[in-house]
Amino acid sequence: MAVLERTLMGPGPSNPYPEATAALSAPMLGHLDPAFLAILDETCDRLRSAWQTANARTLPLSGTGSAGMEAAFVNLVGPGDVVVVGVNGLFGERMCEVARRCGAEVVRAEAPWGRPLDPADVVAAHPSPKLIAVVHAETSTGVENDVAAVAAGKGDALVLADCVTSLAGIPVDLDAWGVDVAYSGTQKCVGVAPGLAPFTLSDRAWEQRVARPQSWYLDLGLVGEYVGGQGGRKYHHTAPVSMIRSLHAGLGVVLDEGLPSVWARHAECGRLLHEGLQSLGLELWVDADHRLPELTTVLVPAGVDASKVRAQLLDRFSIEIGAGVGPHVDRMWRIGCMGHTARPANVKLLLAALAEVLER
Amino acid sequence: MAVLERTLMGPGPSNPYPEATAALSAPMLGHLDPAFLAILDETCDRLRSAWQTANARTLPLSGTGSAGMEAAFVNLVGPGDVVVVGVNGLFGERMCEVARRCGAEVVRAEAPWGRPLDPADVVAAHPSPKLIAVVHAETSTGVENDVAAVAAGKGDALVLADCVTSLAGIPVDLDAWGVDVAYSGTQKCVGVAPGLAPFTLSDRAWEQRVARPQSWYLDLGLVGEYVGGQGGRKYHHTAPVSMIRSLHAGLGVVLDEGLPSVWARHAECGRLLHEGLQSLGLELWVDADHRLPELTTVLVPAGVDASKVRAQLLDRFSIEIGAGVGPHVDRMWRIGCMGHTARPANVKLLLAALAEVLER
Repeated sequence: MAVLERTLMGPGPSNPYPEATAALSAPMLGHLDPAFLAILDETCDRLRSAWQTANARTLPLSGTGSAGMEAAFVNLVGPGDVVVVGVNGLFGERMCEVARRCGAEVVRAEAPWGRPLDPADVVAAHPSPKLIAVVHAETSTGVENDVAAVAAGKGDALVLADCVTSLAGIPVDLDAWGVDVAYSGTQKCVGVAPGLAPFTLSDRAWEQRVARPQSWYLDLGLVGEYVGGQGGRKYHHTAPVSMIRSLHAGLGVVLDEGLPSVWARHAECGRLLHEGLQSLGLELWVDADHRLPELTTVLVPAGVDASKVRAQLLDRFSIEIGAGVGPHVDRMWRIGCMGHTARPANVKLLLAALAEVLER
Repeated sequence: MAVLERTLMGPGPSNPYPEATAALSAPMLGHLDPAFLAILDETCDRLRSAWQTANARTLPLSGTGSAGMEAAFVNLVGPGDVVVVGVNGLFGERMCEVARRCGAEVVRAEAPWGRPLDPADVVAAHPSPKLIAVVHAETSTGVENDVAAVAAGKGDALVLADCVTSLAGIPVDLDAWGVDVAYSGTQKCVGVAPGLAPFTLSDRAWEQRVARPQSWYLDLGLVGEYVGGQGGRKYHHTAPVSMIRSLHAGLGVVLDEGLPSVWARHAECGRLLHEGLQSLGLELWVDADHRLPELTTVLVPAGVDASKVRAQLLDRFSIEIGAGVGPHVDRMWRIGCMGHTARPANVKLLLAALAEVLER
């Protein structure tokens, strides 16, 4: 059977960096093998570099980005804790649901989907929340929220940033911004297969953690005795060795290129894509000043069958783009240009294919 | 740098089947790509074959085997529910802890570590539990518990079996036994990298599920709308595509060989290993009638430094074996012979290396 290759320009997974793919198939090592533990430690170091944080508690969790979200809430909030959540898309909504399942009192600070949160609204939503949570790059809408401004006004609260679609794609400067806890996914700008959740937690957040989280699997106190444990490793669960080696390799590519260059590459691809789409007469949903370069929402022209276009891109050109989310499923396409996919040649290919399918 | 290869004879990961390793590095597909969804569906079919179950709700969860354990409890028990847990090793203990974090009332049915549970004790531990949970193959001790006998006496309770170290290694016959819910890991006898939790749930268990589990990530109602959803897929989280393709391939190897042949291979390796260890004058911890072939506990002879022997096997022969668990860390070795590792040649290699290191 022929091997199927895709140009992955949906909301993720993106095409992984080749080095990350190659690392997946390295001979297996035990999760307590000194050779693997050295790779794990270096992976945590590389995550610190990518996040721009000195947090000792920086590690890959053994689940997808959504497990990172759940880990943040179960470890930091319990029954009755007030959590302010910025909601302007699906992932803000999801944070509300996850926080509620921890028994938190959720206060929503909303903006319409497709528009950014107003940081002033978010910090004013409650006088003394334990946690303020915002999504940096809303994958459902293509909007960037101003995490730095929210963190600047946090007062005594902890600030949580969902960086699933921002880490290693657009500037993320956790410590300078004053973010206390953040998570990401591996399958977006990080350029690795889906399956891990990079996670980081400040000392300040650690001191305010839930003593015995309702999740055993995501209990950072227990996980931390294996990953980055000072003075001996204690078994918690078997680490996903191959995925961690792949993350190690993917982050190596990112850091070798250098974060500024990686950000510039994503920005350039976004610019080319946005200009190209507009040249085809297509309308972008998000205003330029809050529009993500790595995830673009495009309005489907009147009379065009959105899913048929996606199917044709897939069948004729082996290019994947995404549908809209929720009420926007047939009104919008979501075009990702992340990680290894973020190359001008891929943008040109997509624009040419789209022109042909749309007969423009 | 030279690529490090290990013969993995610890408690897991084992050496993956080569086909499973190759599948990891296949070009990435989107998690909603029809080509990937076909692979996902077939993976669920293969899991049904491996478990010997007709359960519609049979799927790989996006976490390690421990996430499978947590998924079982958060979806089936809530505050005040009575759970009987058979405890004769670390993983029985872990089930107690996970159940308590769900608010369950935990009733322990114990046997000493290294000895099997008495099924009569387990079913008599409480008159009307919601759930009875037992570990089929205790990785911490090398003991097989009689799941079939527990399930035969379950009455109105649900029965949960931890099959992390049994699936695709020794006979597991879920439907014939009457087990309602079970999970496994990929890195043991299944012969795939660590990172996924095969999971299966009967209709009877589904009808008694918790309406809104405390975990959003492991909520089977939500996960099930993506995996195996009848009539359309609903996005929940991004599936770990590469790991699922690898599981698909690993299960393909197992089913092509045929379960009876796979079981016979594990049994034969266990027999060779047990005889060989005894020929070296070493004592096995577990009696022959409840001793697992795939995970063997060996007492460390008096005067021998247990960890030094493990280090020498690793450094001189690139063979990994495991330490004992908890109080047995220095008193015992744990030798796994699972999945692709379960070959007589590996047993012979280990015995020869051990003879040399122990100077016997």
